[in-house]
Amino acid sequence: MASLGSIEEEITKQSARYNELRLQPNGDPVALEEVRQKLGELKKTLGQAKAAAGGGKKKEERERLLLKTAKGTRDFGPAEMHCREHIERIVKDCFALYGGSCLDTPVFERKDILTGKYGEDQKLIFDLMDQGGEQLALRYDHTVPLARYLAMMGANVTQHKLWQVGKVYRRDQPVMSKGRMREFSQADFDIAGTWDPMIPDAEILSFLSTVLTKLDVGEFTIKLNHRKILDGIFEVCGVPADKIRSISSAVDKLDKLPWSEVKKEMTEEKGLDPAIADSIGEYVKHKGGPDLLEQLLGNTTLVANANAKQGLEDMGLLFKLLAAYNVVDKISFDLSLARGLDYYTGIIYEAIVEASAPPGFKANPDPSTSAAPSDNPPPPSKKKTKKPKQEGEEDEDEVDESQVGVGSIAAGGRYDNLVGMFTSAAASADSAKKAAKAGTPCVGVSIGLDRIFALLYPKWIEQGKRQKDTMVYVMAAGDGLLVERIKLVRELREAGVKSDYLAKTKPKLPAQFAAGEKDEVPFAIILGESELKEGLVTVKEQRWEMQDGKKVKLVTEGDDKGQKVSREGLVDWLKSRELWQKW
Amino acid sequence: MASLGSIEEEITKQSARYNELRLQPNGDPVALEEVRQKLGELKKTLGQAKAAAGGGKKKEERERLLLKTAKGTRDFGPAEMHCREHIERIVKDCFALYGGSCLDTPVFERKDILTGKYGEDQKLIFDLMDQGGEQLALRYDHTVPLARYLAMMGANVTQHKLWQVGKVYRRDQPVMSKGRMREFSQADFDIAGTWDPMIPDAEILSFLSTVLTKLDVGEFTIKLNHRKILDGIFEVCGVPADKIRSISSAVDKLDKLPWSEVKKEMTEEKGLDPAIADSIGEYVKHKGGPDLLEQLLGNTTLVANANAKQGLEDMGLLFKLLAAYNVVDKISFDLSLARGLDYYTGIIYEAIVEASAPPGFKANPDPSTSAAPSDNPPPPSKKKTKKPKQEGEEDEDEVDESQVGVGSIAAGGRYDNLVGMFTSAAASADSAKKAAKAGTPCVGVSIGLDRIFALLYPKWIEQGKRQKDTMVYVMAAGDGLLVERIKLVRELREAGVKSDYLAKTKPKLPAQFAAGEKDEVPFAIILGESELKEGLVTVKEQRWEMQDGKKVKLVTEGDDKGQKVSREGLVDWLKSRELWQKW
Repeated sequence: MASLGSIEEEITKQSARYNELRLQPNGDPVALEEVRQKLGELKKTLGQAKAAAGGGKKKEERERLLLKTAKGTRDFGPAEMHCREHIERIVKDCFALYGGSCLDTPVFERKDILTGKYGEDQKLIFDLMDQGGEQLALRYDHTVPLARYLAMMGANVTQHKLWQVGKVYRRDQPVMSKGRMREFSQADFDIAGTWDPMIPDAEILSFLSTVLTKLDVGEFTIKLNHRKILDGIFEVCGVPADKIRSISSAVDKLDKLPWSEVKKEMTEEKGLDPAIADSIGEYVKHKGGPDLLEQLLGNTTLVANANAKQGLEDMGLLFKLLAAYNVVDKISFDLSLARGLDYYTGIIYEAIVEASAPPGFKANPDPSTSAAPSDNPPPPSKKKTKKPKQEGEEDEDEVDESQVGVGSIAAGGRYDNLVGMFTSAAASADSAKKAAKAGTPCVGVSIGLDRIFALLYPKWIEQGKRQKDTMVYVMAAGDGLLVERIKLVRELREAGVKSDYLAKTKPKLPAQFAAGEKDEVPFAIILGESELKEGLVTVKEQRWEMQDGKKVKLVTEGDDKGQKVSREGLVDWLKSRELWQKW
Repeated sequence: MASLGSIEEEITKQSARYNELRLQPNGDPVALEEVRQKLGELKKTLGQAKAAAGGGKKKEERERLLLKTAKGTRDFGPAEMHCREHIERIVKDCFALYGGSCLDTPVFERKDILTGKYGEDQKLIFDLMDQGGEQLALRYDHTVPLARYLAMMGANVTQHKLWQVGKVYRRDQPVMSKGRMREFSQADFDIAGTWDPMIPDAEILSFLSTVLTKLDVGEFTIKLNHRKILDGIFEVCGVPADKIRSISSAVDKLDKLPWSEVKKEMTEEKGLDPAIADSIGEYVKHKGGPDLLEQLLGNTTLVANANAKQGLEDMGLLFKLLAAYNVVDKISFDLSLARGLDYYTGIIYEAIVEASAPPGFKANPDPSTSAAPSDNPPPPSKKKTKKPKQEGEEDEDEVDESQVGVGSIAAGGRYDNLVGMFTSAAASADSAKKAAKAGTPCVGVSIGLDRIFALLYPKWIEQGKRQKDTMVYVMAAGDGLLVERIKLVRELREAGVKSDYLAKTKPKLPAQFAAGEKDEVPFAIILGESELKEGLVTVKEQRWEMQDGKKVKLVTEGDDKGQKVSREGLVDWLKSRELWQKW
């Protein structure tokens, strides 16, 4: 029987392979299942081996280093990062297009800054160890640090449109394959300050539509609602004031659960009168566009409610501005949208794409046939997938991955009181009132960059995108000509040409070609001693194409042996080539 | 007497102002001193007020929220981030120029990954709280996570030139004004794998020289040494084997302390024979270029030592390659460079600029007059600056800021055994030996982005750089023409023109001009109702120049009243203007 060590080593290797396969967007399900089974067998063998060895692990084996990233986090390698950098560039360009300025806040905050902002999700905050000094915690989103910054700056804020890109942290149950992680990247755009009604709100929604279009995420819909309309509906339906937030969070689940289950939560768990639940159900089944707004304005009961009236007026103005922004067709005014976070005070929204929705959801449904929530198909039978647990990993609840969509790819809303919460909490009692009044109203959106990546990366692979943008690979025949290769690479780089060479003294020519081809470099430059004396180099042009899902190298016609080019005029020659223009 | 609350409020405000002033690169020392004094008075008043109130703070006052970032961290606002984004773009472009691929690792690692890698500095690691599950800690640098990634990937590494940009964390005593913080940004470039001797090392040094030149940090020097030469020197001088690392770390302090103090540490603290210390002193005073190498190769005692011989051979080869890379003039072969970290095994280096050196240091000294360390001027008399402590802040040692330079702006070296440490620690005993052998040799460099920023931002301000790149501000006279303004902004943005407008329904024209001027927008477009009917808009061109340290707006000659431009052809017209080309 193999040694404990070697079995465990094999398990580590196969686990890594399993995780790798599982994370591949176009992964082969057969290969995945094979590795899964192999892992199961190995673990059985390990158990037997341990029993045979007299039970229990030896101390030094227990203390062996586990070579893995922390739970719910992962590395992104070169191919993935090339795509992620592309995503980040598009988003940042879009921030600049809309007049945004960048803000950067620390990854951790004083714990009390985060306390009391996230409702029951506060338990998901990652705390830092108390090592003497301050109580610190990793940021949970970009919104609260932004509000803290605005409160600190007071009247000294130099720009009112602020963007942030960075990682945020939630100690949640990870579902890695769907891009739900403990460490994830968000890109936020916020407009702070007192402006005229609904103008910043419309600007943010236009930004969201533009950035999702530029990212090419596919067909998307921005679900839109207003907290005041929702509160008004609850009030006219007769929900007691102290139950409004908890009933609202039940409604928030309508994108994941059928109406019957949400109603059950309202009545059985939260003690709501079933008749009241039913009348809520009548309201929240509606979605549409400006037509729905007209319909609600005709509802005299609703319009008589102060909250609802204010919300409907806001929406009327908003739709007028959205028309000027030409984004009305991307919007679905959806009364079932509630959003979990406590701090929203006005419009709320969430962008979804068909691919990101849970099973049974259709993006951009025909508003004329808006289905009642109770028409949602029941969830498919639960098939629990349990991923193989590695040694030392903490116990975790099973997650039913079939029920987890990528979810919304962006979300946000208006939060007029969050900055004021900081100002008043920091002020002493006698000035608290003044400070709360002076709080800065804000509206903003967070884009889930990992979810965008989960959507775009499979397409990226399918289209056969390069992993890097190196343009030239410099090689040499015969004696290696190391110094000559270095000199040419240096000159090319000085001219801004992304260039590389093989870090060997006398490499064989095929090894150099292989290295250049791995990077899919369009220009291979070959140095020869006698040619160099004549002031010439040989250049081969090559490009790659996807054919039947595979990368195939194409050589420009008549270029099998390459072309002689003057070394002196090389850069100009390269820049004049059609292949150069392509990049 | 004012209330406790209002005094404390004022202290918070003045502290924020003090910190703000202190961090301004071109700050006014008089204003700073004024605020400092005012703070002192306020605190005295607060003490008296508390005494009068019967001593001690009330509970609710003690529990008030402290509106600040965590110790040793700070926000970067719009003007600063515009400069930092510029720095990051240059560095990333340079990574691509050298054929690098991006890697991204999580901000925290399993604690045991970081353990045993940083020598005595391990105490500076930030731990996360044990909330059930794994023991986690914030990454201390990018090198160890890279090595962990390489060990996990084994033979599956797809690229060998890897770069990382991100924040790292050290629980050190912060000196904010010099860019020494607990959270700071590093950009790393590493070459992994078995290549021919010194080629990746030369490539990294060429990269470092190129990126510092492109960043325009001013005159810089790359101090270069070799761990094996240093070890050889210690051996031939007679340092006992068990003292070599601790004597090496004493030598490492020669850039901050005069030789006399370093010698004292060697002899009095570490018990080294003074005669041995003196002969070390003779060696480490040398710096130069290939000439120094020749001189050392003539030293038969040194060349007889195996370590020294290997190191000198490496350096000979390296200088040959550096000549091909044309960077020899940036290099100072400096026998006093030791570097603190344990894991280096070959060449080590550190880039410094004159502005970043501690008092008395001159960058790029004439090698012909290389001064002995004992010739260094004594440090100026210690003038301790104690920054005002805010309520709730932990006690900290006083830091003598006059003795803290920005320090090295980039540093690195060869570390051939770090990846192997992971592979062997993760492997069971019987395969450990094999794994250690299979460890991947690496060489790399870390660029301190905060230190680069501390150097460049003052110049950036001095040159009057814009805070953002918005090109067009759309405004309207009279009735506001909100919908028309939105439509034009939308069309401009659709054409890729960075545009903005004032988020008010009927803003006054001067307010709109002021907003556009705040952003230093080169094109102000004014809409008028009757002009729009004729298909025309008015465009004013404006640019700003620094005159006597102040921004002055210049209007293009003959453009006081603006020019009438066809609304339809607006984008083409804008792009044809000289002012457009400027950006």
